Amino acid sequence: MVSFTVFRGSKEGSIVEGTTTREIREDEVLVKVTHSGVCGTDEHRRHTDMVLGHEGVGIIEDIGSAVKSHSIGEHVGWGYFHNSCGVCKQCLLGRDNLCAQVEKYGKSNLDQGSFGTYAVWKASFVFKLPSTISLENAAPLMCGGATVFHVLKSSNVKSSDRVGVVGIGGLGHLAIQYAAKMGCAVVAFSGTEDKKEEAMRLGATQFVATAGVETLDIGEPLDHLLVTTSFQPDWDRFLAIMAPQGSIYPVTVSDHNLSIPPGVVIGKELRIIGSLVAPRQVYREMIDFTALHNIKPIIETFPMTAQGATEAMDKLRAGKMRYRGVLAA
Amino acid sequence: MVSFTVFRGSKEGSIVEGTTTREIREDEVLVKVTHSGVCGTDEHRRHTDMVLGHEGVGIIEDIGSAVKSHSIGEHVGWGYFHNSCGVCKQCLLGRDNLCAQVEKYGKSNLDQGSFGTYAVWKASFVFKLPSTISLENAAPLMCGGATVFHVLKSSNVKSSDRVGVVGIGGLGHLAIQYAAKMGCAVVAFSGTEDKKEEAMRLGATQFVATAGVETLDIGEPLDHLLVTTSFQPDWDRFLAIMAPQGSIYPVTVSDHNLSIPPGVVIGKELRIIGSLVAPRQVYREMIDFTALHNIKPIIETFPMTAQGATEAMDKLRAGKMRYRGVLAA
Repeated sequence: MVSFTVFRGSKEGSIVEGTTTREIREDEVLVKVTHSGVCGTDEHRRHTDMVLGHEGVGIIEDIGSAVKSHSIGEHVGWGYFHNSCGVCKQCLLGRDNLCAQVEKYGKSNLDQGSFGTYAVWKASFVFKLPSTISLENAAPLMCGGATVFHVLKSSNVKSSDRVGVVGIGGLGHLAIQYAAKMGCAVVAFSGTEDKKEEAMRLGATQFVATAGVETLDIGEPLDHLLVTTSFQPDWDRFLAIMAPQGSIYPVTVSDHNLSIPPGVVIGKELRIIGSLVAPRQVYREMIDFTALHNIKPIIETFPMTAQGATEAMDKLRAGKMRYRGVLAA
Repeated sequence: MVSFTVFRGSKEGSIVEGTTTREIREDEVLVKVTHSGVCGTDEHRRHTDMVLGHEGVGIIEDIGSAVKSHSIGEHVGWGYFHNSCGVCKQCLLGRDNLCAQVEKYGKSNLDQGSFGTYAVWKASFVFKLPSTISLENAAPLMCGGATVFHVLKSSNVKSSDRVGVVGIGGLGHLAIQYAAKMGCAVVAFSGTEDKKEEAMRLGATQFVATAGVETLDIGEPLDHLLVTTSFQPDWDRFLAIMAPQGSIYPVTVSDHNLSIPPGVVIGKELRIIGSLVAPRQVYREMIDFTALHNIKPIIETFPMTAQGATEAMDKLRAGKMRYRGVLAA
């Protein structure tokens, strides 16, 4: 048995320090948490009595007797999913993120997360990190990076395609880098010119400030559009710049329905494609790709304390984070 | 020059007989129209001063000097598209239906259609019909059949998939047959039990009457859902029965926006896929597949007159057509 500190949400939204006690089962590993990313989904769960955090990174400190895939001292990360059934159609097809029995953030293991000093996870759901990715830079990959990489990797994005990224935040600033390194032309959309220089430096080939602009003038249309804003964009403007058979990916959940005129979807044969974080094999490929191309999130660090988590979440909610908050132990 | 009778829409919605005079250019064919299907899109254009009809079938009576692909006496059909640029990316990829210069029903060639005695078309946009498909049965294939076949053929529908068809009308009753002949399990959805027997006879493996039913009980979920109704379905009920990575095809245009909760689209990685009638190669494959499997529309015939067209369109609008109206010369 091992006891460790965790940070939970609460009805009033304050972050509360507590303790969890866990057994380390034979197929589990004990991770000493060094860093955690702070994601919009944590903010969604802030008013829930559960341990927050699902962009976890740390060092394995102990392993169960049956664990062969990991060893003590190894750098690892984990994300949104903790376990799946292993035998259903989705699991057999490598789509474990879609397993009906999947254990995921907010639904299971509510007594531990990446906001804490330790966590105990199934060995098969933590990912080995290479030494070329620093622990603090690895944290934002574990949900944000995996989510946008999965869209680009699993949706047949080709190097000759033009990729749009709406919203330059925790997800968007990684999407720009991944798409650019995949060889795509990347058009970044943001409200104002404020993030232009950074977006271009990250690999965008074009930057469009959208506030008050009726018609988005981008030249050639887009084959793919990742919508990473926490609100629905003005669809008419964006549908107008999609290429025939272009794909739109609403990667962040908002409270409002997607409301899209069917005529344009049919007339251009557009596709609206849902994508849920990433299955495990895509996580592995994302980590390899990130290391190979030396892709790095831009982070702001906060202490791994109730106060640090509160500050980071407040800044994220205020839309002021550039671009991913990371709690550091 | 050739002159022929045509039937136009009008501001008040009455069908008006008129005359068109056309030259037969070197790359064109003159078709004596024997039959025309009556499609919902004709109803959309009814109040426009243009010749109606885009499910045309007939016999070639004359050909331009450069035409090599067709000959006099040949049975042919044509549909929604009349010409494309031939050199853009879409044309080169065999997606001529998405060419920005495509000449299509309602936008070009407003002086002729399949509601008439003759029509003159680019030889490259009419399709040869085998003798095994009767002219009257061929008519509904030219838009309705092509539209649903394109969805099934171009969207990676596999024989092991479960396909749902919402709405059993001109498109739906063909979609059931195509999907069944492709080897799929087919679930037909209709308001009442009224069309159950016919749907099962057409190849549905399951029939669900949806009126007043809160939860659709279909056992295993659907990999594909073709929505052929002229109105938006109650999305929540249908999203609930979609399999992970299931695809939804809104094949008919309605006035209302698609309004879909993003959480379900993301959570199941659903895809909403637009599909526009069909490119020419898919038309050809549709005709071959229809002949090979002896697929037949169920039709009601009306005379090719202003009155016949009016009656057919009124019946279609009233939702009483079983299942495709065909005007016969």
